[in-house]
Amino acid sequence: MNQTIETLLSHRSIRKFEDRALSGEQIRTIVESAQAASTSSFIQAYSIIGIKNPETKKKLAELAGNQPYVEENGHFFVFCADLHRHDVLAEMEGVTIDESLESTEKFMVAVIDAALAAQNAVIAAESMGLGAVYIGGLRNSLKEVSELLKTPQRVLPLFGLAVGYPAQNPDKKPRIHFEHVYHEDVYETDENVYKKELKEYNELISEYYRERTSGKRSDTWTGQMASMLSKPTRMYMKEFTETKGFNKR
Amino acid sequence: MNQTIETLLSHRSIRKFEDRALSGEQIRTIVESAQAASTSSFIQAYSIIGIKNPETKKKLAELAGNQPYVEENGHFFVFCADLHRHDVLAEMEGVTIDESLESTEKFMVAVIDAALAAQNAVIAAESMGLGAVYIGGLRNSLKEVSELLKTPQRVLPLFGLAVGYPAQNPDKKPRIHFEHVYHEDVYETDENVYKKELKEYNELISEYYRERTSGKRSDTWTGQMASMLSKPTRMYMKEFTETKGFNKR
Repeated sequence: MNQTIETLLSHRSIRKFEDRALSGEQIRTIVESAQAASTSSFIQAYSIIGIKNPETKKKLAELAGNQPYVEENGHFFVFCADLHRHDVLAEMEGVTIDESLESTEKFMVAVIDAALAAQNAVIAAESMGLGAVYIGGLRNSLKEVSELLKTPQRVLPLFGLAVGYPAQNPDKKPRIHFEHVYHEDVYETDENVYKKELKEYNELISEYYRERTSGKRSDTWTGQMASMLSKPTRMYMKEFTETKGFNKR
Repeated sequence: MNQTIETLLSHRSIRKFEDRALSGEQIRTIVESAQAASTSSFIQAYSIIGIKNPETKKKLAELAGNQPYVEENGHFFVFCADLHRHDVLAEMEGVTIDESLESTEKFMVAVIDAALAAQNAVIAAESMGLGAVYIGGLRNSLKEVSELLKTPQRVLPLFGLAVGYPAQNPDKKPRIHFEHVYHEDVYETDENVYKKELKEYNELISEYYRERTSGKRSDTWTGQMASMLSKPTRMYMKEFTETKGFNKR
């Protein structure tokens, strides 16, 4: 196993950081690594906002549901789907491209572009001995986040990324079995096999919690998910993406 | 610079591979690396289909617009947004979670989950000396791709990934300048600065093409994008995502 794969396989989200800011050079390396990721047809449909201002970080932490590590970290990045750049270039080139930019297809392209870049940023950070955690909580309040970061039309903040020197060493959480996630040639169509795999995974996850809570907790994965998904959240998102000029047609 | 960052920064898409299949062990390492990526609230909302059947590869190559490297590679992966797993667990747990699963929010979560996993797969492959290229062309014909791969309701193939032993050594394509992609505290709101940066990037890209075509080609980036985006493509996507049970409310 090479060093890079070791980095990939030992990923855990880090939610407690030392009080030590990243250097400008570290930030630049992380962003340049993000930029090196593939981009659909060279469209480069994302932007990254790095937050230095402590007031802005504090407000983002509140908006994300009072997660302290949004405020306390080595650096905080916000990854955005970005087709504003393409609105500006359309003006420069004298063409009309609204139909393309407003499509669900281009919305997906921009979201995927941003996610590929973000994952490169995480790997770069981890390879330097730093830790990181994605902050989907920004999507609790995208209107307020957009106003705070002054993102224009056709820019959609997707998630934050807190990076820093780890001050905790959590265990890796076991993923669904390889066989359940990886299909060969066609998707697994035997419902019995499929359910059996989920039940096996439940046993693994229950054991994981039992061991770490002296038997007090023994949640299954399907139970956790059923409970989480029974409460619909962020149901404003469809309308909000459309208001921002995405996912309209 | 460490080995991992070197791998990240030297990424180029590889579109020509040796006639040499990946081993089962290589495939497993790539998929396990993908699985180690972060997943939103542990939801694990993606699946990967590995294509071995030469007939299936041939059909996918046709559907993706006759790209030969979809057929000729070391292995071909299809990354899917997947909330079918959660439909099944809802049945197992006796809960109703359609409202959550049909939301644009969960559509975004599944697309992001799949993209983070895919980017880990690319980095794992590249760290082993392999090359890779994303195949967005699968989205030309998602109905046919879904039928071919027998993906059920709430599974959406997003893109392919061809991996293999590189048989070409293309140059790196310069990305938009760091300063244009990376904003500090707030998004760049000065339109003049913004346009100046795009014009500077145009010069870089023109130079890149001139050098490689003995001056025959000197496209700008904004020109390329204006031309590409003037022709709306895959406009069936909004309806298709909804038909598959995503992005509905």
